[in-house]
Amino acid sequence: MEIKVLKDILSTNDEMAERNRALLDSKKITAFNIMSSPGSGKTSLILETIRALKKQARIGVIEGDIASTIDAQKVSREGVPVVQINTGGECHLEAGQIGRALESLPLDEIDLLLIENVGNLVCPGEFRLGEHKKVLILSVPEGEDKVHKYPLLFSVADAIVINKMDLLPYARFDVPAFLKAARGLNRKARIFQVSCATGEGIREWTRWVRSAMSRSK
Amino acid sequence: MEIKVLKDILSTNDEMAERNRALLDSKKITAFNIMSSPGSGKTSLILETIRALKKQARIGVIEGDIASTIDAQKVSREGVPVVQINTGGECHLEAGQIGRALESLPLDEIDLLLIENVGNLVCPGEFRLGEHKKVLILSVPEGEDKVHKYPLLFSVADAIVINKMDLLPYARFDVPAFLKAARGLNRKARIFQVSCATGEGIREWTRWVRSAMSRSK
Repeated sequence: MEIKVLKDILSTNDEMAERNRALLDSKKITAFNIMSSPGSGKTSLILETIRALKKQARIGVIEGDIASTIDAQKVSREGVPVVQINTGGECHLEAGQIGRALESLPLDEIDLLLIENVGNLVCPGEFRLGEHKKVLILSVPEGEDKVHKYPLLFSVADAIVINKMDLLPYARFDVPAFLKAARGLNRKARIFQVSCATGEGIREWTRWVRSAMSRSK
Repeated sequence: MEIKVLKDILSTNDEMAERNRALLDSKKITAFNIMSSPGSGKTSLILETIRALKKQARIGVIEGDIASTIDAQKVSREGVPVVQINTGGECHLEAGQIGRALESLPLDEIDLLLIENVGNLVCPGEFRLGEHKKVLILSVPEGEDKVHKYPLLFSVADAIVINKMDLLPYARFDVPAFLKAARGLNRKARIFQVSCATGEGIREWTRWVRSAMSRSK
């Protein structure tokens, strides 16, 4: 039987996350760790945020995916610096990967760093990256009961974004039940109702992004 | 620094999976391991399968969730035996959990066992449970590019179910591009286009379930 000896992964990750955070603070960069299931709209929200704020802030992006550079290509077309992390098979980003990605970004020319985590509503919640804010996206077609089934990420988020509100007429999603359940787990998170397809709610979201940027300075 | 010594988790899991498989075979039970992101429709597909097949097969269900018994309650209302596994924080089911769940099910009264994995498009792909067939669900609102970003599960699936086809008019999902990409990773998987909301495609799906049952006897 093969015996694997591992260091305490989470405490090592925390040390690296603190190093990332110190570097970001020294460069006056506010970083968001954006998490959700696959297909909830992380890339779409990043693209909408870039379009809304690129005249007011210098934005950089780190794209996390198990494989492919599809998302980094989409972001790159917006004219902002982007680094793609391919995790191989890993289901979440870790702080060490972010540390290496930061070495490839022009940190003196960035105010706002948007980190797109791997699509996964579970594991990313356990790994701090050095971010200032954790953002969780849930999309309408996923159903409001996901709060009960995946409580960790809902309880640690600074902002919860309900995306694909344009699909509300076609999908079963009980907004009041969701809000009640989310508030039960997390009293402090800001909750936004948006549609990246129609632009609904994007203004409220970007206003919060800007206030988070000024508070972290 | 704390040092954790772990056994080779995957090979231990494989041994337990083989034990589960031998038990299932001895009881003439065909088992399906149903995997997807949160909210793609695992529970809905299980409910539709029960409704379509419960006169022709004796069905049992194992529900895997990090927390809650919401899904087990829904299945229980259909009048079939069900066991809920709560993984605590774990993002996938493991064979040992299935082994314990099998002890709680009336195996002599079951022909078809539907196992709903934790909602996660990544980690469940690495853990065999002892199943005869792996079923992967992707729902239309998640987008067809998920094949490129989460290739493992697409490559190992015996059946790929595109769910929420009723949302096709309202969401961007390129069916031909999806089929081409999925075929590139996996030539043998059967691919179904269904809607658990309207019943579209459920007949083709359940026909395949029945043929898989007769082949595994």
